[in-house]
Amino acid sequence: MRDYRVGLIGTGFMGRTHVLGFATAARAFEMPVRLRLAAVADVTEAAAEAARRSFGIERATGDWRSLIDDPAIDVIDITAPNALHGEMALAAIGAGKHVYCEKPLAPTAAEAREMTEAAEAAGVVTQVGFNYVANPMLRLAREMIGGGELGEILSYEGRHAEDYMADPAAPWSFRHDPAGGGAMADLGSHALATAEFLLGPIAELMGDAATAIRERPAPGGPRAVEVDDAARAFLRFESGVPGLVTASWVATGRKMSHDFEVHGTKGGLYFTGERLNELQFYSAGDAAGRRGFRTIVAGPEHPPYARFCPAPGHQLGFNDLKAIEIAGFADALAGGPEPFGFRKGLRIQRLVEAVRDSSAARGWVTTAPGEEGAMP
Amino acid sequence: MRDYRVGLIGTGFMGRTHVLGFATAARAFEMPVRLRLAAVADVTEAAAEAARRSFGIERATGDWRSLIDDPAIDVIDITAPNALHGEMALAAIGAGKHVYCEKPLAPTAAEAREMTEAAEAAGVVTQVGFNYVANPMLRLAREMIGGGELGEILSYEGRHAEDYMADPAAPWSFRHDPAGGGAMADLGSHALATAEFLLGPIAELMGDAATAIRERPAPGGPRAVEVDDAARAFLRFESGVPGLVTASWVATGRKMSHDFEVHGTKGGLYFTGERLNELQFYSAGDAAGRRGFRTIVAGPEHPPYARFCPAPGHQLGFNDLKAIEIAGFADALAGGPEPFGFRKGLRIQRLVEAVRDSSAARGWVTTAPGEEGAMP
Amino acid sequence: MRDYRVGLIGTGFMGRTHVLGFATAARAFEMPVRLRLAAVADVTEAAAEAARRSFGIERATGDWRSLIDDPAIDVIDITAPNALHGEMALAAIGAGKHVYCEKPLAPTAAEAREMTEAAEAAGVVTQVGFNYVANPMLRLAREMIGGGELGEILSYEGRHAEDYMADPAAPWSFRHDPAGGGAMADLGSHALATAEFLLGPIAELMGDAATAIRERPAPGGPRAVEVDDAARAFLRFESGVPGLVTASWVATGRKMSHDFEVHGTKGGLYFTGERLNELQFYSAGDAAGRRGFRTIVAGPEHPPYARFCPAPGHQLGFNDLKAIEIAGFADALAGGPEPFGFRKGLRIQRLVEAVRDSSAARGWVTTAPGEEGAMP
Amino acid sequence: MRDYRVGLIGTGFMGRTHVLGFATAARAFEMPVRLRLAAVADVTEAAAEAARRSFGIERATGDWRSLIDDPAIDVIDITAPNALHGEMALAAIGAGKHVYCEKPLAPTAAEAREMTEAAEAAGVVTQVGFNYVANPMLRLAREMIGGGELGEILSYEGRHAEDYMADPAAPWSFRHDPAGGGAMADLGSHALATAEFLLGPIAELMGDAATAIRERPAPGGPRAVEVDDAARAFLRFESGVPGLVTASWVATGRKMSHDFEVHGTKGGLYFTGERLNELQFYSAGDAAGRRGFRTIVAGPEHPPYARFCPAPGHQLGFNDLKAIEIAGFADALAGGPEPFGFRKGLRIQRLVEAVRDSSAARGWVTTAPGEEGAMP
Repeated sequence: MRDYRVGLIGTGFMGRTHVLGFATAARAFEMPVRLRLAAVADVTEAAAEAARRSFGIERATGDWRSLIDDPAIDVIDITAPNALHGEMALAAIGAGKHVYCEKPLAPTAAEAREMTEAAEAAGVVTQVGFNYVANPMLRLAREMIGGGELGEILSYEGRHAEDYMADPAAPWSFRHDPAGGGAMADLGSHALATAEFLLGPIAELMGDAATAIRERPAPGGPRAVEVDDAARAFLRFESGVPGLVTASWVATGRKMSHDFEVHGTKGGLYFTGERLNELQFYSAGDAAGRRGFRTIVAGPEHPPYARFCPAPGHQLGFNDLKAIEIAGFADALAGGPEPFGFRKGLRIQRLVEAVRDSSAARGWVTTAPGEEGAMP
Repeated sequence: MRDYRVGLIGTGFMGRTHVLGFATAARAFEMPVRLRLAAVADVTEAAAEAARRSFGIERATGDWRSLIDDPAIDVIDITAPNALHGEMALAAIGAGKHVYCEKPLAPTAAEAREMTEAAEAAGVVTQVGFNYVANPMLRLAREMIGGGELGEILSYEGRHAEDYMADPAAPWSFRHDPAGGGAMADLGSHALATAEFLLGPIAELMGDAATAIRERPAPGGPRAVEVDDAARAFLRFESGVPGLVTASWVATGRKMSHDFEVHGTKGGLYFTGERLNELQFYSAGDAAGRRGFRTIVAGPEHPPYARFCPAPGHQLGFNDLKAIEIAGFADALAGGPEPFGFRKGLRIQRLVEAVRDSSAARGWVTTAPGEEGAMP
Repeated sequence: MRDYRVGLIGTGFMGRTHVLGFATAARAFEMPVRLRLAAVADVTEAAAEAARRSFGIERATGDWRSLIDDPAIDVIDITAPNALHGEMALAAIGAGKHVYCEKPLAPTAAEAREMTEAAEAAGVVTQVGFNYVANPMLRLAREMIGGGELGEILSYEGRHAEDYMADPAAPWSFRHDPAGGGAMADLGSHALATAEFLLGPIAELMGDAATAIRERPAPGGPRAVEVDDAARAFLRFESGVPGLVTASWVATGRKMSHDFEVHGTKGGLYFTGERLNELQFYSAGDAAGRRGFRTIVAGPEHPPYARFCPAPGHQLGFNDLKAIEIAGFADALAGGPEPFGFRKGLRIQRLVEAVRDSSAARGWVTTAPGEEGAMP
Repeated sequence: MRDYRVGLIGTGFMGRTHVLGFATAARAFEMPVRLRLAAVADVTEAAAEAARRSFGIERATGDWRSLIDDPAIDVIDITAPNALHGEMALAAIGAGKHVYCEKPLAPTAAEAREMTEAAEAAGVVTQVGFNYVANPMLRLAREMIGGGELGEILSYEGRHAEDYMADPAAPWSFRHDPAGGGAMADLGSHALATAEFLLGPIAELMGDAATAIRERPAPGGPRAVEVDDAARAFLRFESGVPGLVTASWVATGRKMSHDFEVHGTKGGLYFTGERLNELQFYSAGDAAGRRGFRTIVAGPEHPPYARFCPAPGHQLGFNDLKAIEIAGFADALAGGPEPFGFRKGLRIQRLVEAVRDSSAARGWVTTAPGEEGAMP
């Protein structure tokens, strides 16, 4: 079995998640290739070394370029700030390495397109970290929708809401700069990915990107927030189904509302990311007086749950979703399809920009996938 | 204490609700006037007589105009189909009677305006049946928002979703005709009323009125549905707060999703009409590690709950909300302010039409209250 | 149609509930007899008069015996303190009147037996106010259990928990005296009634009656609490099914936990009184990967819900359950079976005492219904 | 840093959980010793080899004794059937190895005592796999109770219910033999461990061990089930608090009801294992009209959650609890206290037997911890 040595760049929130995901994936899955977390890079030697020690990784470096140059590294895994994704990925691709990159792929669709085209030209395998679609309950939802269990689909609502920016005393940061993206880019991108994962391509949308907290403390006085913190978009899927997504990082009290609700002529589903092991299913075909939303709890009947536990209801965690994502990347390295390659990351970034553009133009825009490729 | 004899027109869903509401209000509240359900009218003598017997009312008639002409009737209560509201209300107003009318006030804002102006000119007392705002938990939410318990308000989401039209085999009816209104008029009007009840006037909105089931069985072959069945609108309140309302009658599995969620700098609230005795409250001021949405259950601390029960958690029902609404009407008859008079009914109808118009024009429209009066 | 004039004794919590129940029942149901709330009695003329005015009743008296003596009164409705139930009911029976009595029927089974035997000898119609079994969702549960939808029943758990005595600063009252009953008598009686309503007679039980707060403030210093405030009992139903009931009035945070859970070979149910319009149903026969507890929400398919509303999910309230109970009493007055007559009230009191006795004896006791009659 | 090489015996449900737990613990925690999963044993070479390959372990053997004899192995980790725990642990202890053993420690308290005394005499470090008490939300509950946030504790209810034996067609197995244990031993042991973890030692209890499904299919015809499948016990803690635990493996629809509810004079808590990242907290000290159970969601304020994720609401999974347990074992190997050593495992087994004994004797028994040591 072939070994792929991974060089991880970035050791913050997502760095930790990737480290745990690799560890779990290696044990939970019988992957067709072996992924070895061989080295870690951060902005300083000290930070990298601290992470190396904490995570139990062999090598550390304060210079991410040394991982690119290292012939012993096969895969570059990028969890650095979004603004650096492009430079790092392009360097890795240039060195013929496969690239696993956290979402969003890049701050702009233009940069995401450059990265995508470079990767495709180089023939390397890519993956973008949209981990929520790795959830067995989302896979179940997609299977039920695709298999007709809900009948003809009538409408869709999705959202991703958290509250980490709800306190107006939280200081201005790079996230509040246009390059930072905003709530639709940071969180709504997940909601858009799930929407296309479940219902197929969005053909048209109309955004409303609002800024609820308009300035934030900064050294030298309040500074304007230039991105959305509570955004929405009306959707029309190619199938004609009308829909909606919302995104917010000022949703006070919400910690992980990666939610959706879908209605069909024969049934309905809803899901909240705050209870990631549950899918609510209403079957209009149940007997009269006995109908109601069922709380389906994740179990071994919902692949790949059984890789983690043979008994239902024991619950997967957030990091387990990352392990599933990583197992999919391993399959792609072995020649399988990319579960969520750069082209899909580009697609999501295109949709994010369409929300912003249509909001600014106060009108609908078309988002037919065209050249940038469609989900799923 | 003065007696007001009520003549009820219409004995269907809402007729029953009004009958039960009058019965409960008379016992639960110490109203400043006495409301006596004196007579009932329906389209035929037989239907009226059946209702009279079933509900235990003194008199019945197949001719609603006879109630208008009857000097022994002081209040006309209209629960007939929407298309008849205007004719009935104008006749009642013309006869100097007070009018209690189910929502929506009329199929068009133009007609609603005519009714409102006639009532104001005549000086009669009016009430429109937006019963959800009578819920003690909505009153609590409004009090918390108004009292600053959530801090500065950042965003709002509301919806009213049910599924009684989700089956495409349900035949074409008057509800699918433009005069019938559609989901935003029928259900979304409740969501719009709650939005303005909680956050004040909407200044601007942008609608998306979709028709998910485009034709329905009719004698002679399928007939086109000409109204929305799943509609949404972006909102901007006068306060600058961004918001959203959605309406659907094809929300498979949902029976009473009269829901809202509101985020502020100090707290958040959410509510679902499927559990009308609960309000979820997140206080950012709770101790670290002890924060979370609290399920506040309705109790005697939430007026006028104690009128129904001195112990918390025993739960009010839908008809109890109507009794509260009726008690408010009685106060208005005794000279108090109208809790939800025709001018507010007109306001809601204006908003419903703004959703439709902006959807058709694919652009935002202003909805500053102006001459038609504002909520609340 | 025959009129029955009702004289209500007691105007507190349950007095209000009965008043509202009579008002609603008269409109919601087509009852075979007419129940007219004709007079109200309380301990003083002033209290009675205040209630008369508040509730809109014709006559008031400070002397309940005058209602007994009044030939214009056909039914005595007792909502006075438990200790007075016996004297009042026996007087009413002696005067040939029908009797509707709040639960518990009496503080002791001996007294309840005397009342029951007197009523049966006199041939009057009786009713005890165990209103929770009037809930359409409990009727649905019973129908599902009886109809085999859960397969063979394997186990049962029930409870009734509230928290109105959880504050140790709440002063000593008559409720803390042995004659007052305690949590099992006051609340657990509901849980026992529901247990037998759903699963049939209890053959044997073993109680554990604990007193968590052992003394309470009283004039002159702390006074001992002589009743249980958190009690439990193991059960064996006649069918052999093992079970459990618990009762508490110190269940901090619980306002209306009239709950049950029942497991069968083919399905399971659970219910909480805090959401009285929902029944959770798990069907083991659902397709693999699609199983889960369904939230069945009360609707017109669950009689007599449609008497209140033709649309599902609109929710009944606590007082509506009383109206259903009263409609059942009206049927009994017209010659139908008593839904919950004195003999059943005696049965429940027998079970309450069995919990206490077995707890004191620290051993199991038999509770086969025998002469006192069985539920249901 | 010292390395401890682990030999894992057993590769089923719990074997997988341990493998994943070791992998995660090594990355998530900065453990004071290094735990290396060095070899795996199962009943046959083939089974062991399959597990080795699947999990990515270096060595495999069909002879568990070879791990005992192997000087390169420092820790024996036992996930084999309960009946073998004693023999394996005693052999490992005899060889001077540390022992990590899945719960229950042994089928009988006598055997558990022998194992405990042998381990203590040998001075090896031990751990029993009661993983639910590793949940940050249970640790939070314990901290809140111990810190007085609920005031004086009034009552306790715990349960562990699943449904894997609810189908009467499930064949007779070793689990239905007295040596197998039954539902109280298999699942109730978790509930007993949590009860003592939260409230301290149980002084006295009274059991009711029932068998709902009395025979099961076996080759040659139905065979009697000789263990409980739905058992309960009344409790008295040493503190005087009354309590209850229940256990069932026939709780149709329940997949992971490791639940508890605790009431105090100032607050209440409840928890269900089906939502392991949530703790419900009611504070009687909240403002009037604003009280309610709060859904506290696990976050970095609840150690050691932050080891897995810096953001709240992202959710831990079942295997993460095992990783926390393993990190505690590593601390013990480095000289810290045993979080849940054999003596505690013995204690739980003593309680399990007390439930059975008191049920058989139909009377209360004392369970003061005495020589076998107390939880926590």
